[in-house]
Amino acid sequence: MQGFGKFSSKKAGLTPGTMVYVGDKKPEKPRITIIDYSQDTFTEKIVENIEDCFGYKDTGTVTWINVDGLHDLKLIEKLGRKFDVHQLILEDIVDTGQRPKIEDAETYLFIILRMIYFDDDENEIKSEQISLILNGTCVISFQETVGDIFDIIRDRIRTGAGKVRKMGADYLAYSLVDAIVDNYFSIIEKTGEKIEDMEEGLLNNPTFENLKTIHELKRGIIQLRRSIWPLREVVNSLEKGESPLIQKTTRVYLRDVYDHTIQVMDTVESFRDTVSGLLDVYLSSMSNRMNEVMKVLTVISTIFMPLTFITGLYGMNFNTEASPLNMPELNWKYGYVFMWSVTLIITVSMVAYFKRKKWF
Amino acid sequence: MQGFGKFSSKKAGLTPGTMVYVGDKKPEKPRITIIDYSQDTFTEKIVENIEDCFGYKDTGTVTWINVDGLHDLKLIEKLGRKFDVHQLILEDIVDTGQRPKIEDAETYLFIILRMIYFDDDENEIKSEQISLILNGTCVISFQETVGDIFDIIRDRIRTGAGKVRKMGADYLAYSLVDAIVDNYFSIIEKTGEKIEDMEEGLLNNPTFENLKTIHELKRGIIQLRRSIWPLREVVNSLEKGESPLIQKTTRVYLRDVYDHTIQVMDTVESFRDTVSGLLDVYLSSMSNRMNEVMKVLTVISTIFMPLTFITGLYGMNFNTEASPLNMPELNWKYGYVFMWSVTLIITVSMVAYFKRKKWF
Amino acid sequence: MQGFGKFSSKKAGLTPGTMVYVGDKKPEKPRITIIDYSQDTFTEKIVENIEDCFGYKDTGTVTWINVDGLHDLKLIEKLGRKFDVHQLILEDIVDTGQRPKIEDAETYLFIILRMIYFDDDENEIKSEQISLILNGTCVISFQETVGDIFDIIRDRIRTGAGKVRKMGADYLAYSLVDAIVDNYFSIIEKTGEKIEDMEEGLLNNPTFENLKTIHELKRGIIQLRRSIWPLREVVNSLEKGESPLIQKTTRVYLRDVYDHTIQVMDTVESFRDTVSGLLDVYLSSMSNRMNEVMKVLTVISTIFMPLTFITGLYGMNFNTEASPLNMPELNWKYGYVFMWSVTLIITVSMVAYFKRKKWF
Amino acid sequence: MQGFGKFSSKKAGLTPGTMVYVGDKKPEKPRITIIDYSQDTFTEKIVENIEDCFGYKDTGTVTWINVDGLHDLKLIEKLGRKFDVHQLILEDIVDTGQRPKIEDAETYLFIILRMIYFDDDENEIKSEQISLILNGTCVISFQETVGDIFDIIRDRIRTGAGKVRKMGADYLAYSLVDAIVDNYFSIIEKTGEKIEDMEEGLLNNPTFENLKTIHELKRGIIQLRRSIWPLREVVNSLEKGESPLIQKTTRVYLRDVYDHTIQVMDTVESFRDTVSGLLDVYLSSMSNRMNEVMKVLTVISTIFMPLTFITGLYGMNFNTEASPLNMPELNWKYGYVFMWSVTLIITVSMVAYFKRKKWF
Amino acid sequence: MQGFGKFSSKKAGLTPGTMVYVGDKKPEKPRITIIDYSQDTFTEKIVENIEDCFGYKDTGTVTWINVDGLHDLKLIEKLGRKFDVHQLILEDIVDTGQRPKIEDAETYLFIILRMIYFDDDENEIKSEQISLILNGTCVISFQETVGDIFDIIRDRIRTGAGKVRKMGADYLAYSLVDAIVDNYFSIIEKTGEKIEDMEEGLLNNPTFENLKTIHELKRGIIQLRRSIWPLREVVNSLEKGESPLIQKTTRVYLRDVYDHTIQVMDTVESFRDTVSGLLDVYLSSMSNRMNEVMKVLTVISTIFMPLTFITGLYGMNFNTEASPLNMPELNWKYGYVFMWSVTLIITVSMVAYFKRKKWF
Repeated sequence: MQGFGKFSSKKAGLTPGTMVYVGDKKPEKPRITIIDYSQDTFTEKIVENIEDCFGYKDTGTVTWINVDGLHDLKLIEKLGRKFDVHQLILEDIVDTGQRPKIEDAETYLFIILRMIYFDDDENEIKSEQISLILNGTCVISFQETVGDIFDIIRDRIRTGAGKVRKMGADYLAYSLVDAIVDNYFSIIEKTGEKIEDMEEGLLNNPTFENLKTIHELKRGIIQLRRSIWPLREVVNSLEKGESPLIQKTTRVYLRDVYDHTIQVMDTVESFRDTVSGLLDVYLSSMSNRMNEVMKVLTVISTIFMPLTFITGLYGMNFNTEASPLNMPELNWKYGYVFMWSVTLIITVSMVAYFKRKKWF
Repeated sequence: MQGFGKFSSKKAGLTPGTMVYVGDKKPEKPRITIIDYSQDTFTEKIVENIEDCFGYKDTGTVTWINVDGLHDLKLIEKLGRKFDVHQLILEDIVDTGQRPKIEDAETYLFIILRMIYFDDDENEIKSEQISLILNGTCVISFQETVGDIFDIIRDRIRTGAGKVRKMGADYLAYSLVDAIVDNYFSIIEKTGEKIEDMEEGLLNNPTFENLKTIHELKRGIIQLRRSIWPLREVVNSLEKGESPLIQKTTRVYLRDVYDHTIQVMDTVESFRDTVSGLLDVYLSSMSNRMNEVMKVLTVISTIFMPLTFITGLYGMNFNTEASPLNMPELNWKYGYVFMWSVTLIITVSMVAYFKRKKWF
Repeated sequence: MQGFGKFSSKKAGLTPGTMVYVGDKKPEKPRITIIDYSQDTFTEKIVENIEDCFGYKDTGTVTWINVDGLHDLKLIEKLGRKFDVHQLILEDIVDTGQRPKIEDAETYLFIILRMIYFDDDENEIKSEQISLILNGTCVISFQETVGDIFDIIRDRIRTGAGKVRKMGADYLAYSLVDAIVDNYFSIIEKTGEKIEDMEEGLLNNPTFENLKTIHELKRGIIQLRRSIWPLREVVNSLEKGESPLIQKTTRVYLRDVYDHTIQVMDTVESFRDTVSGLLDVYLSSMSNRMNEVMKVLTVISTIFMPLTFITGLYGMNFNTEASPLNMPELNWKYGYVFMWSVTLIITVSMVAYFKRKKWF
Repeated sequence: MQGFGKFSSKKAGLTPGTMVYVGDKKPEKPRITIIDYSQDTFTEKIVENIEDCFGYKDTGTVTWINVDGLHDLKLIEKLGRKFDVHQLILEDIVDTGQRPKIEDAETYLFIILRMIYFDDDENEIKSEQISLILNGTCVISFQETVGDIFDIIRDRIRTGAGKVRKMGADYLAYSLVDAIVDNYFSIIEKTGEKIEDMEEGLLNNPTFENLKTIHELKRGIIQLRRSIWPLREVVNSLEKGESPLIQKTTRVYLRDVYDHTIQVMDTVESFRDTVSGLLDVYLSSMSNRMNEVMKVLTVISTIFMPLTFITGLYGMNFNTEASPLNMPELNWKYGYVFMWSVTLIITVSMVAYFKRKKWF
Repeated sequence: MQGFGKFSSKKAGLTPGTMVYVGDKKPEKPRITIIDYSQDTFTEKIVENIEDCFGYKDTGTVTWINVDGLHDLKLIEKLGRKFDVHQLILEDIVDTGQRPKIEDAETYLFIILRMIYFDDDENEIKSEQISLILNGTCVISFQETVGDIFDIIRDRIRTGAGKVRKMGADYLAYSLVDAIVDNYFSIIEKTGEKIEDMEEGLLNNPTFENLKTIHELKRGIIQLRRSIWPLREVVNSLEKGESPLIQKTTRVYLRDVYDHTIQVMDTVESFRDTVSGLLDVYLSSMSNRMNEVMKVLTVISTIFMPLTFITGLYGMNFNTEASPLNMPELNWKYGYVFMWSVTLIITVSMVAYFKRKKWF
């Protein structure tokens, strides 16, 4: 599975409409599942050959074909020819570095979305392309790998929970989009927690590790923004669009999904402001700490330099016998005591001075 | 009560329209108050069962049902069914992390607002979700906890002060929105005072505490902006919207509320600029202070290093007897005096040099 | 007179339309002046009671009622009732923290502007609210204090200079707006001079005072922007608006005022960029200066540390008699000369090194 | 000639439409040149009195009146009255701090542009106001001083080069605008060279002078942006506007000028980004250099402090005779050699340590 | 070939429509290639004289004339006259510093694009202007130098691969635009890799070289943005424009190109954010490193300064015989041991203190 916005030169120089799978995960064989249902009927099976799906095309019942794995280009081409899908759209399905978008091809709608997830191994936010084709009674969904994001929808269809069995293919498409958008909330939640954890540490004891975390968070937020902004447009087009494939009753639900994307976007924007504020805090703490270090150095130097001068002074070898002017202190009875007194006076007054200046 | 934009995974995988209370405060039992009035009549009571409200539905008088506490989902569902409220809207009412929004469901308007307040314990700006449903003669309001924000409206209705008793349910809804917007002014005022306090301290004696305060202010302002921008849209839609539920006479008042939200927004934006300016001032002060520390260190070192060299010089043990070239100063009559003269000359000229360079 | 955007809690919990004077300056008694004129007639007087104005209302001549001082709410209410002004607008007139705005109430236009001035005592840009009501033949203006900003208009009316006596109330309103906008130019000029003064000082000898001035300038510019952006909208609405109260001939003049506000805005925006550039210069100078200080310290330390080592070396007390290997230099004939030679060589080569590195 | 956006108080309190020349350059007498031409005829002369132009007004041939010098208000007023120019526009012509703008007065178009040039004396980008009035057959142009920017147009008219002699007054106006816009390219070119020169120096050897240059470049770019943005609007209005004074054939050429302004704008914007990037580079270099200085200081201190300690140690005067425990090293045969060995070991290991840490 | 947005004064003062080649690369002679094809026919040749192309003009088959090299102005003028191209457009073709743009001249479309490539010699992103003229059956393309970017299109036409032979001149124009846009992906990929390489190095071991690389990346990104933003507009105009020269079937393909430009733009924007984040990381690392250096210095100074004081102390020459108060330690039996004990205690406690403060 290829990162969003990573480009490969695999496709250079090919005629438009040439399908090239640019991802890197190749499961043994794509898994094709079919769910066909109406309010009263329900069929679910995993098929070996894509041709086995074709019988469900114009039955009047809602058919959901889900393809996990995009490397079998023949399979996807057959499916596309059966369902009259434009060659350029088939190209987009397998070119997995696409931005979320929606295309209204009159007889069907084509939707690209990005499912977002947190890769614990690489400690990074990653995304996978999910494509949907919706025509009157069918929804065809394409995923890069076998995933569990649509399992809750499958369960609802199986058990007849909620409204999904009572409504058409457009409601099914809405449910899939909704499942993907809901998934964003968990990333948002995780990111929010990370920010808070880091913030606390940062204010108490900033380290260079914090900077790395800030940098990672920033990158994650850039990633999130890049997925969410076009997602918002897609959902908005679905809701506001004029396609007769989306029923009015379903649009109310799409409005709800739209509100969710707005909420996600809004939170991501505020994360962005917060993280950029944290960088300022980090830099300020660093500069503050440097200040502290400098003060210690200065205090130490300022106290000991005069003292060292004094000890150096009385370590001089002027010939006291040559002249009584030469270092008479050395022969005083209280010379050493006198020297210590001077030393102490200097030390104490220095310390007092720095105390008053609030240097420590 | 859940923070705005904090997400919980409580809701993952549920069918759309499933109500889940995501907040954390569960009062003993929701408090339901009914106020029913016309220009001449007035009834107010606290009811135990939600069914007791239903009689007021189509009486021609204005009815205000206020529900404090959102954890009793059954209660809210009953109310929703009675007033023909869409399931998705009921879901929004109890999902208390919503962004302010307005929805025109033709027979009624649904409004989500956020009441903002300052939590002294956590020293943070917090917000609580308030939902309003307005149909021809009823206003139903939902609050997360028992609050006092609407008390002034209740008083006006009771005493017949102002126009509220003379006008319809739309004016009541306006009054509630107005009360919430007015509440923003007090947070704005408090934030403004904090900024000014801090600014003064910052210019005279910046500390690391200032940085923390700046950071908190920034976060507060991010919070405020997130609440106010959508609030502005809500109020604008109310005023400009085409819903026949809002009378023309009420729109004049909504225009006034709109002006208030603009004023709040405008002030928050200028707070933002000011606080970001304060960060610059903080950083500059820090760098200025470091400069001062460095100067002290440099002055001290520059004065004492040559002196220490001199004392070291005359502390050397060259054999003066081996050669008259070896440290003859030690045997001079005025050797020590000479040494002190050199020392003083160096010190004085260094001090003069730094004075001229304005280092202290 | 209350600062723009400072909120007071005086108004919390009052019914909409309740007039509250939120300012703090209460002159003995509001001053009411009436100027009534046509091309041929001219009357000017100061009246004691507001009722004395009412006779001028429907005379066909242009009437200008100016009220200086807003604390006498009764007076303003009487005036409002006489001229059919909406209660919410009366509230706005006395609530002196308003943003510039215009409201078209069909029979009259209501305009709020902010007169800007420089308060020398507090060294700050301040603003005062000026409200205008324009109906067919009357202009009513409200000022917070007795001011001289409209004196030039009065002179023109008295002497019949310009076109004002030949044209209607809309031209008078234009003249008042023009006088207020012209006033911005003087603040802009003053701010421009301050920036230039500071810039010069900053490039030659930056001090911490510069930072404070930059901060004050920034705040002043924030203030200016907040006043000018809505002002522009107000003037634009006046010019482009569809109110029949503004004649086509007057719109040409309003276009001129609009150009002025654009020019002011444009200059304020460039001030903003310039001041933010000055902050960069300040910070860079500071860092540059720190560099200089550090270099001095390093040069001094690097020169004297080896010297001090050498003097320390020959100050050691190894027993030269115990072994000829023990510090034979001490007994050399040219030992002291040798030591000085080494010292000088080190010093000279250090100085040469730093010279080459352009450290001083 | 007054800087763009510098305001003078000369105009305060004057009736609208009062002409005041706010510039500071007063040539002996304005120079008036007339060029009158058609495809076949050509007349060019310098006239003493403005009245001498009036004969050319309605001759059917294209007439270009150019006035250099704006301080003779009488002259401009006479010209304005003859050509029916609104008083406010005459005011704008002589008020030389205007922003570029276009006004469609139905019978004529009024255009203000700013001619930009580099003042080598003050090392600053400056601008001069040029006003154009275009009616059916005449173009009147006003310049602040005698300039050579229009000489190429004059040459083309004289020699009949290009299309100018074949086309109407609108093409002449286009040619003048084009000459002014072309002039921007030379400033852009010069600024581009400055940026490149500076960039090279900055990356190799940043000095405080670089900072000043960056600051000057920034100011120049602010100036340029302020002139170009409104210029773009002016040219766009000319091209897209509905004035019948501009023929369709000329609009194609105006489209070309528009492309040029876009190109200038685009380049100025990229200059802005580049210069702001250079500031970052400057600051980073400074901080890098400070780092280098600090390292030198630290290396020197770290090497010599232990050495100085050692020499101090053996400079102590403990009585070796009082006890064999007191500094026996002093009496060792290889004491001095031992001491030097320790010294060298310390030095070498320190140097090795810093080498490994890549400090030098 | 001239850099985009570098201006030359070669063109100053010329009549509009004068063609001037501003580039600097002059191949021996421009190379003219003609490809003429329909679904069944195919002709390809390199011609010596431009007149040899003219026969292909109105044959009904699709004709593609490609001119490599723009310095032969006569040639281009002849071509322009034959194909009725406006003089201003011919000027644009040879003025190679143009911004991407599209012009609809009714009978033909004129498109300027920039082909972007990485110049390994100068380590910089560079661009070359490519102009296209599309009328009913012909596409004329102009390149500054002989390039290989269109070779893949030539191959497809020769071999009849893809749809190009089946469709009209508009599809050919689309193919050329598509080839240019595809080329951006390789630059994007290369830039992306550079950013990642640098990021890794930066987080582990930041050097001044990193800063230079960041600066170069920033400049490259500025260049990319300047090319891509107008490119997007061009492609959008092609797709959405109303020109009858573009068939509906081709618009679907243009939509695909548009998606690609959006994707490129989106990636460039995220590069911009990332690189600006890297600068922050660099600066923070620098400041962090300075902190480390300062700590070393402070630790060393703080440990050795007291020790040096002690050794200085016992190096003083107070006369122990003059008084028993004078430095009795010198004559103690365990004097030296005592002195070493004090020294060790100080050192150990200092080290412990700094360990606790986590300074090393």
